[in-house]
Amino acid sequence: MIDVQADAAHNRMVVTFVAEPALAVDAAMAGAAVATARIDLRRHQGEHPRMGATDVVPFVPFADLPMRVCIDLAHDFGARLWTQLRIPVYYYGDAARRPERRELEKVRRGGFEDLAGHIDDPDRAPDEGSSEVHPSAGATAVGARIPLIAYNVNLKTTDLQVAKEIAKTIRASSGGLPNVKALGFELADRGLVQVSMNLTDFRVTNIWKVFNVIRDEARRRGVEVEASEIVGTIPLAAAVGVVKDAVVEPAFRMDQILEKRVWAEE
Amino acid sequence: MIDVQADAAHNRMVVTFVAEPALAVDAAMAGAAVATARIDLRRHQGEHPRMGATDVVPFVPFADLPMRVCIDLAHDFGARLWTQLRIPVYYYGDAARRPERRELEKVRRGGFEDLAGHIDDPDRAPDEGSSEVHPSAGATAVGARIPLIAYNVNLKTTDLQVAKEIAKTIRASSGGLPNVKALGFELADRGLVQVSMNLTDFRVTNIWKVFNVIRDEARRRGVEVEASEIVGTIPLAAAVGVVKDAVVEPAFRMDQILEKRVWAEE
Repeated sequence: MIDVQADAAHNRMVVTFVAEPALAVDAAMAGAAVATARIDLRRHQGEHPRMGATDVVPFVPFADLPMRVCIDLAHDFGARLWTQLRIPVYYYGDAARRPERRELEKVRRGGFEDLAGHIDDPDRAPDEGSSEVHPSAGATAVGARIPLIAYNVNLKTTDLQVAKEIAKTIRASSGGLPNVKALGFELADRGLVQVSMNLTDFRVTNIWKVFNVIRDEARRRGVEVEASEIVGTIPLAAAVGVVKDAVVEPAFRMDQILEKRVWAEE
Repeated sequence: MIDVQADAAHNRMVVTFVAEPALAVDAAMAGAAVATARIDLRRHQGEHPRMGATDVVPFVPFADLPMRVCIDLAHDFGARLWTQLRIPVYYYGDAARRPERRELEKVRRGGFEDLAGHIDDPDRAPDEGSSEVHPSAGATAVGARIPLIAYNVNLKTTDLQVAKEIAKTIRASSGGLPNVKALGFELADRGLVQVSMNLTDFRVTNIWKVFNVIRDEARRRGVEVEASEIVGTIPLAAAVGVVKDAVVEPAFRMDQILEKRVWAEE
């Protein structure tokens, strides 16, 4: 277990664990069984969208594991969720079986309550299981993906419109930077606004690129960057990518990190 | 063993190994015994300054090991070099016993031939052993220090004077950036010049700072940076430092690197 995050407003817990591939599905099943026993979505409220007591389970390759392995683990886990816990499953990300299900937001749109009423629509049929949600545990999105990076840039203004405009300029869905999701928020207690992002493929669009585009867009509006925030963990490859970009060192490699070389030997 | 570098022009081999503190001195002694048996400085030539068959042995803390432990290892190793191999020893870096011996260059100035003629000068008396060099193996500098970073910035000009001027501007010894050693070189075959550096304490002056100062100095002279080169390995903390500096993320920590968190658990 390397990380657990939970807060009352979201009423949601994010658990991150690392396991050998041969053990990962058993571990995830053990977690899903507890969530199914303890959480009843009919009596659950929270700010974060959700459709399942076990809401979303992404398998993420660590170090040099091929994505193919994570896709197979996702499909194995999804099949067991249905056969053992009777929870219908939607595959997303690299494990998606329908192209329109690659994006988690699309799979989860409307949440548990909406899905319960429409799961028998042909285009909402689960990838595993029958067209009926589990009465208390709903349905689960099971995926395979590379690590996401949660990244925010704070701007020295109280004008929320600036953050919203920049978020719109950079987000992929409105023609901005590929693999970037972005929203503008107010940080009222700090007198700042924030462009809050998920970078869904740092190999395509990494932190350095995003930071510079936002700084330039802010300056065009007469606003300076206060600071940026990397939320939670990032892969070593993403940090190495920032070094490459920031000091124009295209040949820099992960195994030039001293600790990587030593740890990889162990 | 994590790295071995050797080339004919320098006629010198740099061996990097990682060991538990309890084994590090034995391992270094085994290496020094081979060098003493095989290398005769009376018949040795090479471009790199040297005063010993085992020329310099720095103990470098890895991960969270305190520097104090490396200083003790250096002193233990130095005492054994003298008692077991009859090689006189000079302590440098954080293991120095005289303040004027902190800098390796000062300890090694003049090399084997010069030292052999002057080791009985009071200010050249070894920290371990008598005032006489080992006939074939000379003397050894034994130190404790944090990892050095070898870092070069290449400039799009053939004017060597630009690289030399910038090197002089930034090097610590002429009042530039602290903990920076710098020289200007020609890369004739590539039509470039290079500012070649050692960063002796990346916690004080890191890659990002140096890159930007050189870029600005070059631009003032109408010259652009071509690219930069990180030579060999750098500690993870240095890469994390570049991320912090480059995207103004002062709170970013090493344990936000996913692999660090996992490897540190093992």
